[in-house]
Amino acid sequence: MKKVVIIGGGFAGINLAKGLARDKNHTVTLVDKNNYNFFPPLIYQVATAYLEPSSISYPFRRLFRGKQNIQFRLGELLSVNTSENKVVLNNGDLEYDYLVFATGAETSYFGMENVKKNAIPMKTLNDAIEMRNKLLQRMEKAAICKNSRERRKYLNIVIAGGGPTGVEISGMFAEMRSGILRKEYPELSTTVSNIYLVDGGDALLGPMSRQSQQDTLDALTKMGVIVKLNTRVVDYKDDTVYFHTGETVVSKNLIWAAGVTARTFDGIPAQCYGRGKRLNVDEHNKVTGTANIYAIGDTCIQLTDPAFPEGHPQVAQVAIQQGTHLAQNFKKTAAGEALKPFRYHDKGSMAIIGKNKAVVDLPKPKMHFKGFIAWLMWLFIHLMSLISYRNRVTTFYNWMTSYFSKDQSLRMIIRPEKRKSVAETT
Amino acid sequence: MKKVVIIGGGFAGINLAKGLARDKNHTVTLVDKNNYNFFPPLIYQVATAYLEPSSISYPFRRLFRGKQNIQFRLGELLSVNTSENKVVLNNGDLEYDYLVFATGAETSYFGMENVKKNAIPMKTLNDAIEMRNKLLQRMEKAAICKNSRERRKYLNIVIAGGGPTGVEISGMFAEMRSGILRKEYPELSTTVSNIYLVDGGDALLGPMSRQSQQDTLDALTKMGVIVKLNTRVVDYKDDTVYFHTGETVVSKNLIWAAGVTARTFDGIPAQCYGRGKRLNVDEHNKVTGTANIYAIGDTCIQLTDPAFPEGHPQVAQVAIQQGTHLAQNFKKTAAGEALKPFRYHDKGSMAIIGKNKAVVDLPKPKMHFKGFIAWLMWLFIHLMSLISYRNRVTTFYNWMTSYFSKDQSLRMIIRPEKRKSVAETT
Repeated sequence: MKKVVIIGGGFAGINLAKGLARDKNHTVTLVDKNNYNFFPPLIYQVATAYLEPSSISYPFRRLFRGKQNIQFRLGELLSVNTSENKVVLNNGDLEYDYLVFATGAETSYFGMENVKKNAIPMKTLNDAIEMRNKLLQRMEKAAICKNSRERRKYLNIVIAGGGPTGVEISGMFAEMRSGILRKEYPELSTTVSNIYLVDGGDALLGPMSRQSQQDTLDALTKMGVIVKLNTRVVDYKDDTVYFHTGETVVSKNLIWAAGVTARTFDGIPAQCYGRGKRLNVDEHNKVTGTANIYAIGDTCIQLTDPAFPEGHPQVAQVAIQQGTHLAQNFKKTAAGEALKPFRYHDKGSMAIIGKNKAVVDLPKPKMHFKGFIAWLMWLFIHLMSLISYRNRVTTFYNWMTSYFSKDQSLRMIIRPEKRKSVAETT
Repeated sequence: MKKVVIIGGGFAGINLAKGLARDKNHTVTLVDKNNYNFFPPLIYQVATAYLEPSSISYPFRRLFRGKQNIQFRLGELLSVNTSENKVVLNNGDLEYDYLVFATGAETSYFGMENVKKNAIPMKTLNDAIEMRNKLLQRMEKAAICKNSRERRKYLNIVIAGGGPTGVEISGMFAEMRSGILRKEYPELSTTVSNIYLVDGGDALLGPMSRQSQQDTLDALTKMGVIVKLNTRVVDYKDDTVYFHTGETVVSKNLIWAAGVTARTFDGIPAQCYGRGKRLNVDEHNKVTGTANIYAIGDTCIQLTDPAFPEGHPQVAQVAIQQGTHLAQNFKKTAAGEALKPFRYHDKGSMAIIGKNKAVVDLPKPKMHFKGFIAWLMWLFIHLMSLISYRNRVTTFYNWMTSYFSKDQSLRMIIRPEKRKSVAETT
């Protein structure tokens, strides 16, 4: 009976745990600092008040109910003791036979302290809720602000990073501006506000096809988003975003979707980390130079897949496939069978721009879709991917109603009272 | 054109505003410290993770969309300047012709500082979310706690106050204990935990019929809740609840639903306040001794209704009827017509104990219902009362699924990261 400890319950960790469910040769303890799994491709919809947090998340304990060899542990990893095969958490220790890092990636500000301090990240569910609350509060402040230059600061939005998150969120804001803002903030009807989407590269949606990139640029421009390519943010202070071109934009809202980095771990030697702090792994996702430590998903880099000599992209599909694959390899090991090397099967990529607007690239046969048909494909894939039946139905319901009513009704600023401590101390 | 300023957007304030919507003789500004209205009768379901916050709340701006004489203002009242007919908010001033207090009631700890510091209140949506997060975190702590006495502290729950909230929440906990706790916390399967419901009076649901009181006591006892009547909490420290009888219970979870008090306001003379700090009002809800200041709902006390010589109960129905009535009286004043005194029409009272279990008292004809039929009545009334169509449908959907699956899937601990400030400072 092998003890598998998984650190992190995202796509990679969940799929590994599921793959080992009810297996007679393994017990699994999944450690996460949250008590829920969530679906990152849709957090931008939570951030813009189209979806509830609960529509895209699910408690681990519910997920593992009845799977008796899987335990959940709420906790944070402090360090690894490789000589004793033990991890130290903030609330106790765990022994392992196999340790698996599935910790994903976190927001990187490329060392810019002002950006880190003042920008709004878009990586976790907490980020999304914080963004929702901040933007709603700023709209209320704009509504009572007498100075038109100040008012524009509250309403201007700069989104850094032209990947799927940046594209999706700027499309959302463009729709909010012509919907909610116009209908429910009569105080602001005469204020002109701008939405900027900036990216350091020469195209949006870098890894997608030229056609998808151009369609996206066209659609966003038509929706009134000001797209600035070949432009990097270099500083953010005094409510002003500074670009490397010397240009500036006044705005209290800089949304940061421009970069990620992996985490490092106390007890894991420095030579284990590769590009972007990702753990170097072999073709079986074992961390190079270790005996029984593995890494899957965004936190690892694997240079052994012939089709991806530079490593795999940090996307959901890779994490899911690596989690499932590692579970199979653990089972093969237990059965004394030969292991299979990991190979990524690219199922294509997609991004949504707005209602009826999306782009989809399929690899084999190579095809490109846009507009309503791409939007339907996006909707179908994302609905099917959501993990629980319940989530699927309410998510679908919320989307349909907001689609037909062009409305978001989740715009409550819900936050703990200031007088109270948020942290649990007892 | 009269300027009506309403402080507070609960049942009373909302119904006053709605009653004046599109009226040619009045403009309305509704001030609230939240940007949403919520439905207090159901916050206990949010607290126990059966309903989403958004299922029982709705943004004011959405509510007033298209009603051009109604404005929403996010802000907190600091003081009233009666000589200049002006209110001072934390973010500006507003002038009024009529000022209406619809501020409801807040939790009272009867001067017990330890209780205030350590107990969990159950009055606002924020309270409910905090309670949900705290209890979920404590269940996780119990799951890794090795000491059985400590473990019981995390799991024991004491609910103070045997009104509808106390009854409803203890019923919920009893159901959670036999559902979620047993199925998803295998670590805790052998731990005995107790649920106590305590009240200073000699019956639960004080104002309801003897029969309802007895049915409720029987049902809760059968569900394993330990009901202690004629028992008052006198202190709460070192994870121990002290009762006036000398008894104690060890528990980290004291839920406080035992008392409310009204608020006082800077600028309103002390002689305007009556019992429980409620503002004394005449039969038209005008605050005694003022020319153009009104109070409606829980924050006022009216001794002019022949059927209620002691004042009205602090319940939703009174607030709703007073709000609607005051709107009519404002319109009558504008039209030069005679005002009507307020008379409360009691439509009955109800409380839910658990699935298939509720009690209902109807006044005319005097009737009592219990069990499944009462539960259906409760469900119907509450669904119909929820303000928006959207909320009605998703609420219904959540209830139905949790009813058939005996499950709550909203148990995500979602809270801002500790490293970040919750309060908006810019």
